[in-house]
Amino acid sequence: MTERPQPDDRAAYPWHFVTRMRWGDADVYGHLNNARYIEYFDTALNVALIEHGALDLSPDARGPIGLVARNEADFFSEVTFPAAISVGVRVERIGRTSLTWGFGLFACDEPLAAARGRIIHVYVERRSRRPARLAGKLLTCAEALSAPPAGTES
Amino acid sequence: MTERPQPDDRAAYPWHFVTRMRWGDADVYGHLNNARYIEYFDTALNVALIEHGALDLSPDARGPIGLVARNEADFFSEVTFPAAISVGVRVERIGRTSLTWGFGLFACDEPLAAARGRIIHVYVERRSRRPARLAGKLLTCAEALSAPPAGTES
Amino acid sequence: MTERPQPDDRAAYPWHFVTRMRWGDADVYGHLNNARYIEYFDTALNVALIEHGALDLSPDARGPIGLVARNEADFFSEVTFPAAISVGVRVERIGRTSLTWGFGLFACDEPLAAARGRIIHVYVERRSRRPARLAGKLLTCAEALSAPPAGTES
Amino acid sequence: MTERPQPDDRAAYPWHFVTRMRWGDADVYGHLNNARYIEYFDTALNVALIEHGALDLSPDARGPIGLVARNEADFFSEVTFPAAISVGVRVERIGRTSLTWGFGLFACDEPLAAARGRIIHVYVERRSRRPARLAGKLLTCAEALSAPPAGTES
Repeated sequence: MTERPQPDDRAAYPWHFVTRMRWGDADVYGHLNNARYIEYFDTALNVALIEHGALDLSPDARGPIGLVARNEADFFSEVTFPAAISVGVRVERIGRTSLTWGFGLFACDEPLAAARGRIIHVYVERRSRRPARLAGKLLTCAEALSAPPAGTES
Repeated sequence: MTERPQPDDRAAYPWHFVTRMRWGDADVYGHLNNARYIEYFDTALNVALIEHGALDLSPDARGPIGLVARNEADFFSEVTFPAAISVGVRVERIGRTSLTWGFGLFACDEPLAAARGRIIHVYVERRSRRPARLAGKLLTCAEALSAPPAGTES
Repeated sequence: MTERPQPDDRAAYPWHFVTRMRWGDADVYGHLNNARYIEYFDTALNVALIEHGALDLSPDARGPIGLVARNEADFFSEVTFPAAISVGVRVERIGRTSLTWGFGLFACDEPLAAARGRIIHVYVERRSRRPARLAGKLLTCAEALSAPPAGTES
Repeated sequence: MTERPQPDDRAAYPWHFVTRMRWGDADVYGHLNNARYIEYFDTALNVALIEHGALDLSPDARGPIGLVARNEADFFSEVTFPAAISVGVRVERIGRTSLTWGFGLFACDEPLAAARGRIIHVYVERRSRRPARLAGKLLTCAEALSAPPAGTES
């Protein structure tokens, strides 16, 4: 937290999830509430996993699930109802049993993110909740979405 | 409540709002929670008002706002994550100071609504909360979206 | 919907669930959003079931679950943040495979409900989703919470 | 993010907000969803401000409001429905126009937090959104709730 983070543009994210802001997302100050941004990130992450074949939610599904070990977000500008929202998604770090996901939330046609966020997902066996090594489609998905945090030398 | 209501098809609604289901909308039973349908209806209603110029949310706005006097929904089938959602909107009754809005929530490409709903909106002066007679763009919007409940003789 | 329903007092409900309003429950109009009332009703209903031993959420649980076939609410007054909230719960009708639950939402020390609501729950087998006849602790719970809608001749 | 943070106990927080988990807070994995923790933190923060006379939400209120510049949370254990929840609140840093709030979310009778969180609030004039220097009851509130992050040498 030494330096104030900066918003990225859309090109900093290899995959995007497009949705609409909900009426109840705006709080008494008339703007998208800070906790709801995390819901958008969480939603985009899970849609990304599902669309890459890396998460199966059917009742008999096996395969690991991701538990959130950490989330965080930095806010740059206010978003108001009724906004079309685009959530940019990238994988910033691939660990042995975890992924660090990065997000940018863009309102309508704004070129810069209104907020950026991060979710650290630890993958575990569905029933035992024991850590599961990244493999198969989950690893392929992570590699396909890999992009360093913008502004980072690689 | 004498007769079990039936789902309408998309054509029963003159206006549609398209969005995406959110991860947190699904409850422990793995389906879109019943309370969240109301959030989708409420959102679609307010977007419809705004897109018809009938609601202004800017800080200095005047003009009436709608308070919900009643909401209701009937559920026909389960919706699961990650669904694209379309909310059909119609105005079923135009009162002196109130509107009865009707909704159908459609998952993805399903021809029939997973649920139908209704919101009775009473329009009031923003500050005094005193009933305001329907007029101007609000009335024009209501007329543009008017459609009887499907299956109703008119 | 012929006659405008009236708010009940707390004594009209045999069981109460006490909680606190959440910041994000208030929408841009500064009051508890209509869709969130349903969340309070839904929560109170499920806590009532669990505290009466009539619902088990553990991963290996069997026993029927309740699916919502219909919800509805009538709103009488606005609730603002930060309110302590009490939700009165009663069972208004016991069917063969369904229960009609009634609710009143009370803010702080208000004697009359800010809203009343109703949820029709159909009980089904957890996996097959086939209707399950009310029996055992579920039936006992329903009988313990039975109370006619206030204002009803019994 | 070099070292994995640890959960604090209740005594690490000078003020507590007690509430109940909501049915819809649990996601398809059957546990309190990560984004909802932030809603609990945000709620506790605003109740703390109001109870200390440091925030006025009435329509004609003046006085600064807090905008969230950053939120974050670390998760240690799963919380399941229906939990009684206690949110511990402390102020970790008092800036010129900002406060860093710290939180611990405790389920029922658990001695250690299921999660810890942080919100950086920047205080601004309500209309102009220009930064407002901490003063008056807001500063008094901040000082009353001040406590260093546990495990920190002071």
